Amino acid sequence: MSMDTRIETALKNALSTEALADCPPRLATSLPYAVFPGGARIRPTILLSVAMACGDDMPAVTDAAAVALELMHCASLVHDDLPAFDDADIRRGKPSLHKAYNEPLAVLAGDSLLIRGFEVLAAVGPHSPDRALKLIAKLGQLSGACGGICAGQAWESEEKVDLAAYHQSKTGALFIAATQMGAIAAGAEPEPWFDLGMRIGSAFQIADDLKDALVSAEVMGKPAGQDSTHQRPTAVQTMGIAGATKHLQDILAGAIASIPSCPGEAKLAQLVQLYAQKIMDIPAAADRS
Amino acid sequence: MSMDTRIETALKNALSTEALADCPPRLATSLPYAVFPGGARIRPTILLSVAMACGDDMPAVTDAAAVALELMHCASLVHDDLPAFDDADIRRGKPSLHKAYNEPLAVLAGDSLLIRGFEVLAAVGPHSPDRALKLIAKLGQLSGACGGICAGQAWESEEKVDLAAYHQSKTGALFIAATQMGAIAAGAEPEPWFDLGMRIGSAFQIADDLKDALVSAEVMGKPAGQDSTHQRPTAVQTMGIAGATKHLQDILAGAIASIPSCPGEAKLAQLVQLYAQKIMDIPAAADRS
Repeated sequence: MSMDTRIETALKNALSTEALADCPPRLATSLPYAVFPGGARIRPTILLSVAMACGDDMPAVTDAAAVALELMHCASLVHDDLPAFDDADIRRGKPSLHKAYNEPLAVLAGDSLLIRGFEVLAAVGPHSPDRALKLIAKLGQLSGACGGICAGQAWESEEKVDLAAYHQSKTGALFIAATQMGAIAAGAEPEPWFDLGMRIGSAFQIADDLKDALVSAEVMGKPAGQDSTHQRPTAVQTMGIAGATKHLQDILAGAIASIPSCPGEAKLAQLVQLYAQKIMDIPAAADRS
Repeated sequence: MSMDTRIETALKNALSTEALADCPPRLATSLPYAVFPGGARIRPTILLSVAMACGDDMPAVTDAAAVALELMHCASLVHDDLPAFDDADIRRGKPSLHKAYNEPLAVLAGDSLLIRGFEVLAAVGPHSPDRALKLIAKLGQLSGACGGICAGQAWESEEKVDLAAYHQSKTGALFIAATQMGAIAAGAEPEPWFDLGMRIGSAFQIADDLKDALVSAEVMGKPAGQDSTHQRPTAVQTMGIAGATKHLQDILAGAIASIPSCPGEAKLAQLVQLYAQKIMDIPAAADRS
Protein backbone atom coordinates (compact mmCIF):
# COMPACT_ATOMS: atom_id res chain seq x y z
CA MET A 1 0.00 0.00 0.00
CA SER A 2 1.36 3.46 -0.92
CA MET A 3 1.75 6.05 1.86
CA ASP A 4 -1.03 8.13 0.31
CA THR A 5 -3.46 5.20 0.31
CA ARG A 6 -2.46 4.27 3.83
CA ILE A 7 -3.15 7.81 5.10
CA GLU A 8 -6.47 8.20 3.28
CA THR A 9 -7.66 4.77 4.44
CA ALA A 10 -6.81 5.52 8.05
CA LEU A 11 -8.52 8.94 7.87
CA LYS A 12 -11.62 7.42 6.25
CA ASN A 13 -11.86 4.80 8.99
CA ALA A 14 -11.62 7.48 11.69
CA LEU A 15 -14.51 9.43 10.12
CA SER A 16 -16.55 6.59 8.65
CA THR A 17 -20.35 6.54 8.78
CA GLU A 18 -20.00 3.83 11.41
CA ALA A 19 -17.59 5.92 13.51
CA LEU A 20 -19.98 8.89 13.29
CA ALA A 21 -23.18 7.01 14.12
CA ASP A 22 -25.24 8.92 16.75
CA CYS A 23 -23.65 12.17 15.57
CA PRO A 24 -26.12 14.94 14.62
CA PRO A 25 -26.51 14.64 10.81
CA ARG A 26 -25.09 18.02 9.73
CA LEU A 27 -22.14 17.81 12.13
CA ALA A 28 -21.57 14.25 10.87
CA THR A 29 -21.19 15.43 7.27
CA SER A 30 -19.18 18.52 8.25
CA LEU A 31 -16.29 16.44 9.67
CA PRO A 32 -15.43 14.61 6.43
CA TYR A 33 -16.11 17.90 4.60
CA ALA A 34 -13.24 19.44 6.58
CA VAL A 35 -10.87 16.54 5.89
CA PHE A 36 -11.66 15.27 2.35
CA PRO A 37 -10.42 15.82 -0.26
CA GLY A 38 -7.21 16.68 1.50
CA GLY A 39 -4.33 18.94 0.64
CA ALA A 40 -0.86 17.47 0.22
CA ARG A 41 -1.18 15.55 3.56
CA ILE A 42 2.40 16.62 4.09
CA ARG A 43 2.35 16.27 7.91
CA PRO A 44 1.08 12.65 8.05
CA THR A 45 3.37 11.80 5.10
CA ILE A 46 6.38 13.04 7.06
CA LEU A 47 5.13 11.18 10.14
CA LEU A 48 4.83 7.91 8.22
CA SER A 49 8.22 8.45 6.54
CA VAL A 50 9.93 8.88 9.91
CA ALA A 51 8.06 5.93 11.46
CA MET A 52 9.09 3.72 8.52
CA ALA A 53 12.69 4.92 8.80
CA CYS A 54 12.54 3.81 12.46
CA GLY A 55 11.13 0.35 11.67
CA ASP A 56 7.34 0.95 11.85
CA ASP A 57 6.90 -2.14 14.02
CA MET A 58 3.35 -1.20 15.09
CA PRO A 59 1.62 0.06 11.95
CA ALA A 60 -1.73 0.56 13.75
CA VAL A 61 -0.04 2.96 16.18
CA THR A 62 1.63 4.82 13.29
CA ASP A 63 -1.68 5.10 11.45
CA ALA A 64 -3.39 6.49 14.58
CA ALA A 65 -0.63 9.05 15.04
CA ALA A 66 -0.92 10.15 11.39
CA VAL A 67 -4.71 10.45 11.69
CA ALA A 68 -4.60 12.40 14.96
CA LEU A 69 -2.04 14.81 13.53
CA GLU A 70 -3.98 15.41 10.30
CA LEU A 71 -7.27 15.85 12.19
CA MET A 72 -5.59 18.45 14.42
CA HIS A 73 -4.27 20.22 11.31
CA CYS A 74 -7.71 20.17 9.64
CA ALA A 75 -9.33 21.43 12.88
CA SER A 76 -6.90 24.33 12.94
CA LEU A 77 -7.73 25.20 9.31
CA VAL A 78 -11.46 25.23 10.07
CA HIS A 79 -11.00 27.55 13.06
CA ASP A 80 -8.40 29.62 11.18
CA ASP A 81 -10.90 30.30 8.38
CA LEU A 82 -13.55 31.70 10.77
CA PRO A 83 -14.62 35.33 10.33
CA ALA A 84 -12.82 36.25 13.59
CA PHE A 85 -9.50 35.04 12.10
CA ASP A 86 -8.82 34.96 8.34
CA ASP A 87 -12.48 35.26 7.30
CA ALA A 88 -11.69 32.95 4.39
CA ASP A 89 -14.51 32.01 2.02
CA ILE A 90 -12.51 29.33 0.22
CA ARG A 91 -10.39 26.42 1.48
CA ARG A 92 -8.81 23.79 -0.78
CA GLY A 93 -10.86 25.10 -3.73
CA LYS A 94 -14.29 24.79 -2.09
CA PRO A 95 -16.30 26.94 0.36
CA SER A 96 -14.75 27.07 3.84
CA LEU A 97 -16.71 25.09 6.43
CA HIS A 98 -18.47 28.07 8.00
CA LYS A 99 -19.56 29.17 4.51
CA ALA A 100 -20.78 25.70 3.49
CA TYR A 101 -22.50 25.07 6.87
CA ASN A 102 -22.55 27.88 9.42
CA GLU A 103 -20.28 29.45 12.02
CA PRO A 104 -21.51 27.40 15.02
CA LEU A 105 -20.89 24.16 13.13
CA ALA A 106 -17.44 25.38 12.10
CA VAL A 107 -16.47 25.98 15.74
CA LEU A 108 -17.94 22.60 16.74
CA ALA A 109 -16.41 20.71 13.80
CA GLY A 110 -12.98 22.05 14.78
CA ASP A 111 -13.52 21.04 18.40
CA SER A 112 -14.85 17.63 17.36
CA LEU A 113 -11.96 16.89 14.99
CA LEU A 114 -9.31 17.65 17.56
CA ILE A 115 -11.11 15.62 20.23
CA ARG A 116 -11.43 12.75 17.75
CA GLY A 117 -7.66 12.81 17.27
CA PHE A 118 -7.09 12.18 20.97
CA GLU A 119 -9.72 9.42 20.92
CA VAL A 120 -8.00 7.70 17.98
CA LEU A 121 -4.71 7.75 19.90
CA ALA A 122 -6.31 6.43 23.11
CA ALA A 123 -7.82 3.58 21.07
CA VAL A 124 -4.38 2.15 20.22
CA GLY A 125 -3.53 1.84 23.92
CA PRO A 126 -3.93 -1.97 23.77
CA HIS A 127 -1.06 -2.11 21.20
CA SER A 128 1.24 -0.04 23.41
CA PRO A 129 -0.06 2.06 26.34
CA ASP A 130 3.34 3.72 26.58
CA ARG A 131 3.43 4.90 22.96
CA ALA A 132 -0.25 5.93 22.99
CA LEU A 133 0.28 8.12 26.06
CA LYS A 134 3.49 9.65 24.71
CA LEU A 135 1.74 10.44 21.42
CA ILE A 136 -1.16 12.10 23.27
CA ALA A 137 1.25 14.17 25.37
CA LYS A 138 3.26 15.19 22.30
CA LEU A 139 0.20 16.12 20.24
CA GLY A 140 -1.16 18.11 23.19
CA GLN A 141 2.12 19.94 23.68
CA LEU A 142 2.49 20.89 20.02
CA SER A 143 -1.12 21.92 19.50
CA GLY A 144 -1.82 23.72 22.79
CA ALA A 145 -1.24 27.11 24.35
CA CYS A 146 2.50 26.76 25.10
CA GLY A 147 4.43 26.45 21.86
CA GLY A 148 1.61 24.68 20.02
CA ILE A 149 -0.52 25.89 17.13
CA CYS A 150 -2.95 27.63 19.53
CA ALA A 151 0.01 29.71 20.70
CA GLY A 152 0.92 30.38 17.07
CA GLN A 153 -2.49 31.87 16.30
CA ALA A 154 -2.60 33.68 19.64
CA TRP A 155 0.63 35.58 18.91
CA GLU A 156 -1.45 37.47 16.33
CA SER A 157 -3.47 38.95 19.21
CA GLU A 158 -0.36 40.22 21.02
CA GLU A 159 0.85 43.80 20.82
CA LYS A 160 4.48 42.73 20.95
CA VAL A 161 5.17 39.62 18.85
CA ASP A 162 8.00 37.19 19.58
CA LEU A 163 8.71 36.45 15.89
CA ALA A 164 10.73 33.27 16.43
CA ALA A 165 8.10 31.84 18.80
CA TYR A 166 5.34 32.96 16.43
CA HIS A 167 6.72 31.13 13.39
CA GLN A 168 7.85 28.05 15.28
CA SER A 169 4.48 27.56 16.96
CA LYS A 170 2.21 28.63 14.11
CA THR A 171 3.68 26.49 11.35
CA GLY A 172 6.63 24.65 12.89
CA ALA A 173 4.75 22.94 15.71
CA LEU A 174 2.85 20.39 13.64
CA PHE A 175 5.98 19.58 11.58
CA ILE A 176 7.90 18.94 14.79
CA ALA A 177 4.89 16.84 15.85
CA ALA A 178 5.15 14.97 12.52
CA THR A 179 8.77 13.90 12.97
CA GLN A 180 8.57 13.32 16.74
CA MET A 181 5.25 11.43 16.65
CA GLY A 182 6.60 9.32 13.79
CA ALA A 183 9.55 8.37 16.00
CA ILE A 184 7.36 7.67 19.06
CA ALA A 185 4.93 5.55 16.99
CA ALA A 186 7.86 3.31 16.02
CA GLY A 187 9.23 3.10 19.55
CA ALA A 188 12.13 5.53 19.01
CA GLU A 189 13.11 8.53 21.14
CA PRO A 190 11.48 11.73 19.87
CA GLU A 191 14.18 14.26 20.93
CA PRO A 192 16.68 13.60 18.10
CA TRP A 193 13.86 14.24 15.59
CA PHE A 194 13.07 17.77 16.79
CA ASP A 195 15.57 19.42 14.49
CA LEU A 196 14.34 17.79 11.29
CA GLY A 197 10.74 18.75 12.05
CA MET A 198 11.70 22.31 12.93
CA ARG A 199 13.71 22.73 9.72
CA ILE A 200 10.98 21.29 7.48
CA GLY A 201 8.50 23.55 9.26
CA SER A 202 10.65 26.64 8.70
CA ALA A 203 11.12 25.71 5.05
CA PHE A 204 7.40 25.21 4.62
CA GLN A 205 6.66 28.55 6.30
CA ILE A 206 9.08 30.44 4.08
CA ALA A 207 7.86 28.64 0.95
CA ASP A 208 4.32 29.56 1.99
CA ASP A 209 5.32 33.19 2.51
CA LEU A 210 6.90 33.20 -0.96
CA LYS A 211 3.78 31.58 -2.46
CA ASP A 212 1.56 33.99 -0.62
CA ALA A 213 3.50 36.91 -2.02
CA LEU A 214 3.65 35.55 -5.56
CA VAL A 215 0.84 33.17 -6.44
CA SER A 216 -2.59 34.21 -7.68
CA ALA A 217 -5.77 33.11 -5.90
CA GLU A 218 -6.67 30.66 -8.71
CA VAL A 219 -3.46 28.67 -8.35
CA MET A 220 -3.58 28.37 -4.54
CA GLY A 221 -7.32 27.78 -4.07
CA LYS A 222 -7.48 30.48 -1.40
CA PRO A 223 -7.30 34.25 -1.59
CA ALA A 224 -3.68 35.35 -2.10
CA GLY A 225 -1.96 37.99 -0.03
CA GLN A 226 -3.71 36.91 3.20
CA ASP A 227 -0.62 37.48 5.30
CA SER A 228 0.00 41.03 4.25
CA THR A 229 -3.75 41.74 4.48
CA HIS A 230 -3.64 40.70 8.13
CA GLN A 231 -0.32 42.46 8.69
CA ARG A 232 1.56 39.39 9.85
CA PRO A 233 5.31 39.67 9.66
CA THR A 234 6.65 37.27 7.00
CA ALA A 235 10.08 36.11 5.88
CA VAL A 236 9.55 37.88 2.55
CA GLN A 237 8.86 41.16 4.33
CA THR A 238 12.00 40.89 6.44
CA MET A 239 14.42 39.40 3.83
CA GLY A 240 12.91 40.19 0.44
CA ILE A 241 12.11 37.49 -2.15
CA ALA A 242 15.73 36.71 -3.08
CA GLY A 243 16.83 36.62 0.57
CA ALA A 244 13.95 34.37 1.58
CA THR A 245 14.64 31.99 -1.32
CA LYS A 246 18.31 31.66 -0.34
CA HIS A 247 17.32 31.14 3.31
CA LEU A 248 14.91 28.40 2.21
CA GLN A 249 17.68 26.56 0.30
CA ASP A 250 19.98 26.71 3.32
CA ILE A 251 17.32 25.35 5.66
CA LEU A 252 16.48 22.43 3.37
CA ALA A 253 20.15 21.48 3.04
CA GLY A 254 20.42 21.55 6.84
CA ALA A 255 17.26 19.43 7.19
CA ILE A 256 18.81 16.51 5.30
CA ALA A 257 22.00 16.79 7.34
CA SER A 258 19.97 16.72 10.56
CA ILE A 259 18.35 13.29 10.03
CA PRO A 260 19.20 11.14 13.07
CA SER A 261 20.86 7.78 12.70
CA CYS A 262 18.15 5.14 12.13
CA PRO A 263 17.64 1.92 10.11
CA GLY A 264 16.05 3.75 7.14
CA GLU A 265 18.27 6.84 7.23
CA ALA A 266 19.38 6.73 3.58
CA LYS A 267 15.88 6.26 2.20
CA LEU A 268 14.51 9.02 4.43
CA ALA A 269 17.25 11.38 3.19
CA GLN A 270 16.10 10.67 -0.38
CA LEU A 271 12.50 11.39 0.60
CA VAL A 272 13.38 14.67 2.31
CA GLN A 273 15.38 15.59 -0.81
CA LEU A 274 12.23 14.96 -2.85
CA TYR A 275 10.07 17.07 -0.49
CA ALA A 276 12.70 19.79 -0.61
CA GLN A 277 12.52 19.80 -4.39
CA LYS A 278 8.72 20.03 -4.24
CA ILE A 279 8.87 22.85 -1.72
CA MET A 280 11.43 24.75 -3.84
CA ASP A 281 9.35 24.23 -6.98
CA ILE A 282 6.31 26.03 -5.60
CA PRO A 283 7.74 29.52 -5.23
CA ALA A 284 9.75 28.98 -8.42
CA ALA A 285 6.57 28.14 -10.35
CA ALA A 286 4.83 31.09 -8.75
CA ASP A 287 7.67 33.35 -9.78
CA ARG A 288 7.20 32.27 -13.40
CA SER A 289 3.40 32.64 -13.36
CA MET B 1 -8.28 18.89 52.55
CA SER B 2 -11.89 19.67 51.59
CA MET B 3 -13.11 18.63 48.14
CA ASP B 4 -13.40 22.29 47.13
CA THR B 5 -9.80 23.03 48.11
CA ARG B 6 -8.61 19.87 46.40
CA ILE B 7 -10.33 20.83 43.13
CA GLU B 8 -9.14 24.46 43.18
CA THR B 9 -5.56 23.41 44.00
CA ALA B 10 -5.48 20.90 41.16
CA LEU B 11 -6.94 23.44 38.70
CA LYS B 12 -4.45 26.11 39.81
CA ASN B 13 -1.55 23.72 39.29
CA ALA B 14 -2.76 22.88 35.78
CA LEU B 15 -2.89 26.58 34.84
CA SER B 16 -0.04 27.94 36.96
CA THR B 17 2.38 30.57 35.68
CA GLU B 18 4.95 27.78 35.48
CA ALA B 19 2.63 25.53 33.47
CA LEU B 20 1.91 28.43 31.10
CA ALA B 21 5.49 29.56 30.58
CA ASP B 22 6.22 30.16 26.85
CA CYS B 23 2.53 30.86 26.29
CA PRO B 24 1.74 34.18 24.53
CA PRO B 25 0.98 36.63 27.40
CA ARG B 26 -2.66 37.44 26.61
CA LEU B 27 -3.57 33.82 25.92
CA ALA B 28 -1.76 32.90 29.16
CA THR B 29 -4.00 35.20 31.23
CA SER B 30 -7.15 34.25 29.29
CA LEU B 31 -6.97 30.61 30.39
CA PRO B 32 -7.23 31.26 34.16
CA TYR B 33 -9.75 34.01 33.32
CA ALA B 34 -12.01 31.31 31.86
CA VAL B 35 -11.60 28.99 34.84
CA PHE B 36 -11.33 31.23 37.96
CA PRO B 37 -13.31 32.10 39.96
CA GLY B 38 -15.36 29.02 39.17
CA GLY B 39 -19.03 28.27 39.39
CA ALA B 40 -20.25 25.49 41.67
CA ARG B 41 -17.61 23.07 40.24
CA ILE B 42 -20.42 20.54 40.36
CA ARG B 43 -18.92 18.17 37.75
CA PRO B 44 -15.49 17.74 39.40
CA THR B 45 -17.21 17.54 42.81
CA ILE B 46 -19.34 14.63 41.59
CA LEU B 47 -16.25 13.04 40.03
CA LEU B 48 -14.34 13.26 43.32
CA SER B 49 -17.33 12.02 45.30
CA VAL B 50 -17.63 8.92 43.12
CA ALA B 51 -13.86 8.30 43.15
CA MET B 52 -13.84 8.54 46.96
CA ALA B 53 -16.84 6.20 47.19
CA CYS B 54 -14.77 3.73 45.12
CA GLY B 55 -11.67 4.01 47.33
CA ASP B 56 -9.70 6.84 45.62
CA ASP B 57 -6.51 4.76 45.75
CA MET B 58 -4.66 7.02 43.26
CA PRO B 59 -5.50 10.60 44.25
CA ALA B 60 -3.23 12.09 41.55
CA VAL B 61 -5.22 10.27 38.88
CA THR B 62 -8.51 11.43 40.42
CA ASP B 63 -7.25 15.03 40.54
CA ALA B 64 -6.20 14.87 36.88
CA ALA B 65 -9.60 13.50 35.90
CA ALA B 66 -11.38 16.29 37.81
CA VAL B 67 -9.16 18.94 36.20
CA ALA B 68 -9.60 17.58 32.67
CA LEU B 69 -13.36 17.44 33.09
CA GLU B 70 -13.63 20.97 34.49
CA LEU B 71 -11.31 22.38 31.79
CA MET B 72 -13.51 20.74 29.13
CA HIS B 73 -16.58 22.28 30.78
CA CYS B 74 -14.97 25.75 30.93
CA ALA B 75 -13.85 25.41 27.28
CA SER B 76 -17.41 24.64 26.28
CA LEU B 77 -18.68 27.72 28.16
CA VAL B 78 -16.16 29.97 26.39
CA HIS B 79 -17.16 28.65 22.95
CA ASP B 80 -20.86 28.63 23.93
CA ASP B 81 -20.70 32.35 24.78
CA LEU B 82 -19.31 33.31 21.34
CA PRO B 83 -21.40 35.62 19.14
CA ALA B 84 -22.13 32.71 16.77
CA PHE B 85 -23.78 30.80 19.65
CA ASP B 86 -25.35 32.52 22.68
CA ASP B 87 -23.63 35.88 22.10
CA ALA B 88 -23.39 36.25 25.88
CA ASP B 89 -21.73 39.36 27.28
CA ILE B 90 -21.60 38.06 30.85
CA ARG B 91 -20.42 34.76 32.33
CA ARG B 92 -20.24 34.07 36.08
CA GLY B 93 -20.85 37.76 36.78
CA LYS B 94 -17.97 39.15 34.68
CA PRO B 95 -17.49 39.86 30.96
CA SER B 96 -17.44 36.72 28.83
CA LEU B 97 -13.99 35.87 27.48
CA HIS B 98 -14.55 37.25 23.96
CA LYS B 99 -15.77 40.51 25.54
CA ALA B 100 -12.83 40.79 27.96
CA TYR B 101 -10.25 39.75 25.31
CA ASN B 102 -11.44 39.26 21.73
CA GLU B 103 -13.12 36.63 19.63
CA PRO B 104 -9.96 35.00 18.25
CA LEU B 105 -8.60 34.54 21.77
CA ALA B 106 -11.94 33.10 22.91
CA VAL B 107 -11.80 30.44 20.18
CA LEU B 108 -8.15 29.70 21.00
CA ALA B 109 -8.66 29.70 24.78
CA GLY B 110 -11.43 27.13 24.36
CA ASP B 111 -9.23 24.99 22.12
CA SER B 112 -6.28 25.37 24.51
CA LEU B 113 -8.27 24.44 27.61
CA LEU B 114 -9.63 21.26 26.12
CA ILE B 115 -6.23 20.25 24.78
CA ARG B 116 -4.75 20.94 28.22
CA GLY B 117 -7.28 18.55 29.74
CA PHE B 118 -5.98 15.70 27.59
CA GLU B 119 -2.39 16.66 28.43
CA VAL B 120 -3.15 16.57 32.17
CA LEU B 121 -4.60 13.06 31.79
CA ALA B 122 -1.64 11.84 29.71
CA ALA B 123 0.69 13.15 32.43
CA VAL B 124 -0.66 10.67 35.01
CA GLY B 125 0.21 7.75 32.74
CA PRO B 126 3.15 6.79 35.00
CA HIS B 127 0.67 6.20 37.89
CA SER B 128 -1.53 3.95 35.77
CA PRO B 129 -1.32 3.88 31.96
CA ASP B 130 -4.52 1.87 31.87
CA ARG B 131 -6.58 4.37 33.84
CA ALA B 132 -5.05 7.37 32.03
CA LEU B 133 -5.98 5.92 28.63
CA LYS B 134 -9.49 4.96 29.73
CA LEU B 135 -10.01 8.47 31.12
CA ILE B 136 -8.84 10.03 27.83
CA ALA B 137 -11.15 7.76 25.83
CA LYS B 138 -14.10 8.51 28.12
CA LEU B 139 -13.55 12.27 28.09
CA GLY B 140 -13.20 12.18 24.29
CA GLN B 141 -16.39 10.16 23.89
CA LEU B 142 -18.46 12.43 26.14
CA SER B 143 -17.14 15.70 24.75
CA GLY B 144 -16.96 14.88 21.03
CA ALA B 145 -19.26 14.72 18.02
CA CYS B 146 -21.07 11.47 18.87
CA GLY B 147 -23.06 11.90 22.06
CA GLY B 148 -20.63 14.40 23.58
CA ILE B 149 -21.13 18.10 24.30
CA CYS B 150 -20.12 19.02 20.72
CA ALA B 151 -23.06 16.92 19.56
CA GLY B 152 -25.27 18.67 22.11
CA GLN B 153 -24.48 22.10 20.69
CA ALA B 154 -24.64 20.81 17.13
CA TRP B 155 -28.24 19.61 17.56
CA GLU B 156 -29.14 23.31 17.65
CA SER B 157 -28.03 23.56 14.01
CA GLU B 158 -30.28 20.69 12.90
CA GLU B 159 -33.68 21.19 11.31
CA LYS B 160 -35.11 18.12 13.01
CA VAL B 161 -33.96 17.80 16.63
CA ASP B 162 -33.73 14.47 18.45
CA LEU B 163 -34.82 15.90 21.82
CA ALA B 164 -33.60 13.01 23.97
CA ALA B 165 -30.19 12.99 22.25
CA TYR B 166 -30.04 16.79 22.44
CA HIS B 167 -30.56 16.96 26.21
CA GLN B 168 -28.44 13.94 27.03
CA SER B 169 -25.46 15.17 25.01
CA LYS B 170 -25.74 18.90 25.75
CA THR B 171 -25.98 18.74 29.53
CA GLY B 172 -26.00 15.06 30.44
CA ALA B 173 -22.71 14.10 28.78
CA LEU B 174 -20.36 15.82 31.23
CA PHE B 175 -22.35 14.52 34.23
CA ILE B 176 -22.06 10.99 32.86
CA ALA B 177 -18.36 11.79 32.39
CA ALA B 178 -18.24 12.93 36.03
CA THR B 179 -19.54 9.67 37.50
CA GLN B 180 -17.81 7.36 35.01
CA MET B 181 -14.44 9.14 35.14
CA GLY B 182 -14.66 9.13 38.95
CA ALA B 183 -15.08 5.36 38.83
CA ILE B 184 -12.25 4.87 36.30
CA ALA B 185 -9.89 7.11 38.32
CA ALA B 186 -10.39 4.79 41.31
CA GLY B 187 -9.95 1.62 39.27
CA ALA B 188 -13.66 0.71 39.15
CA GLU B 189 -15.75 -0.22 36.10
CA PRO B 190 -17.46 2.83 34.58
CA GLU B 191 -20.60 1.16 33.15
CA PRO B 192 -22.56 0.82 36.43
CA TRP B 193 -22.10 4.56 36.99
CA PHE B 194 -23.77 5.65 33.75
CA ASP B 195 -27.24 5.81 35.23
CA LEU B 196 -26.33 8.06 38.17
CA GLY B 197 -24.55 10.51 35.88
CA MET B 198 -27.42 10.55 33.42
CA ARG B 199 -29.98 11.17 36.17
CA ILE B 200 -27.98 13.97 37.80
CA GLY B 201 -27.52 15.48 34.33
CA SER B 202 -31.24 15.35 33.60
CA ALA B 203 -32.03 16.88 36.99
CA PHE B 204 -29.51 19.64 36.42
CA GLN B 205 -30.92 20.34 32.95
CA ILE B 206 -34.50 20.58 34.22
CA ALA B 207 -33.44 22.71 37.21
CA ASP B 208 -31.58 24.96 34.76
CA ASP B 209 -34.66 25.20 32.52
CA LEU B 210 -36.74 26.14 35.57
CA LYS B 211 -34.15 28.71 36.65
CA ASP B 212 -33.91 30.08 33.17
CA ALA B 213 -37.66 30.54 33.05
CA LEU B 214 -37.90 32.07 36.51
CA VAL B 215 -34.75 33.81 37.71
CA SER B 216 -33.78 37.37 36.88
CA ALA B 217 -30.49 38.23 35.18
CA GLU B 218 -29.03 39.69 38.40
CA VAL B 219 -29.44 36.48 40.37
CA MET B 220 -27.95 34.18 37.73
CA GLY B 221 -25.06 36.34 36.55
CA LYS B 222 -26.07 35.79 32.93
CA PRO B 223 -28.96 37.10 30.85
CA ALA B 224 -32.14 35.19 31.74
CA GLY B 225 -34.46 33.65 29.20
CA GLN B 226 -31.56 32.60 26.93
CA ASP B 227 -33.17 29.31 26.04
CA SER B 228 -36.46 30.73 24.87
CA THR B 229 -34.58 33.52 23.06
CA HIS B 230 -32.71 30.90 21.07
CA GLN B 231 -35.84 28.79 20.66
CA ARG B 232 -34.42 25.68 22.24
CA PRO B 233 -37.01 23.19 23.39
CA THR B 234 -36.96 22.98 27.24
CA ALA B 235 -38.62 20.77 29.83
CA VAL B 236 -40.62 23.76 31.05
CA GLN B 237 -41.98 24.34 27.54
CA THR B 238 -43.06 20.74 27.17
CA MET B 239 -44.31 20.03 30.72
CA GLY B 240 -45.04 23.43 32.28
CA ILE B 241 -43.44 24.61 35.54
CA ALA B 242 -45.39 22.28 37.85
CA GLY B 243 -44.85 19.29 35.58
CA ALA B 244 -41.12 19.97 35.25
CA THR B 245 -40.75 20.36 39.04
CA LYS B 246 -42.47 17.02 39.67
CA HIS B 247 -40.32 15.37 36.99
CA LEU B 248 -37.21 16.80 38.67
CA GLN B 249 -38.20 15.30 42.04
CA ASP B 250 -38.77 11.88 40.47
CA ILE B 251 -35.39 11.93 38.71
CA LEU B 252 -33.52 12.88 41.88
CA ALA B 253 -35.20 10.10 43.87
CA GLY B 254 -34.19 7.66 41.12
CA ALA B 255 -30.62 8.98 41.14
CA ILE B 256 -30.07 7.98 44.75
CA ALA B 257 -31.59 4.57 44.12
CA SER B 258 -29.25 4.07 41.14
CA ILE B 259 -25.96 4.33 43.07
CA PRO B 260 -23.97 1.14 42.39
CA SER B 261 -22.69 -1.00 45.22
CA CYS B 262 -19.29 0.38 46.35
CA PRO B 263 -17.32 0.83 49.62
CA GLY B 264 -18.59 4.39 50.18
CA GLU B 265 -22.14 3.82 48.98
CA ALA B 266 -23.94 5.18 52.08
CA LYS B 267 -21.87 8.36 52.25
CA LEU B 268 -22.31 8.97 48.52
CA ALA B 269 -26.09 8.57 48.89
CA GLN B 270 -26.02 11.29 51.57
CA LEU B 271 -23.99 13.55 49.27
CA VAL B 272 -26.35 13.04 46.33
CA GLN B 273 -29.25 13.79 48.71
CA LEU B 274 -27.49 17.06 49.58
CA TYR B 275 -26.91 17.96 45.89
CA ALA B 276 -30.55 17.08 45.18
CA GLN B 277 -31.64 19.47 47.91
CA LYS B 278 -29.43 22.20 46.44
CA ILE B 279 -30.74 21.56 42.94
CA MET B 280 -34.35 21.66 44.20
CA ASP B 281 -33.70 24.87 46.14
CA ILE B 282 -32.67 26.84 43.07
CA PRO B 283 -35.96 26.80 41.17
CA ALA B 284 -37.82 27.08 44.50
CA ALA B 285 -35.88 30.25 45.38
CA ALA B 286 -36.45 31.58 41.89
CA ASP B 287 -40.15 30.92 42.20
CA ARG B 288 -40.25 33.03 45.38
CA SER B 289 -38.15 35.87 43.95
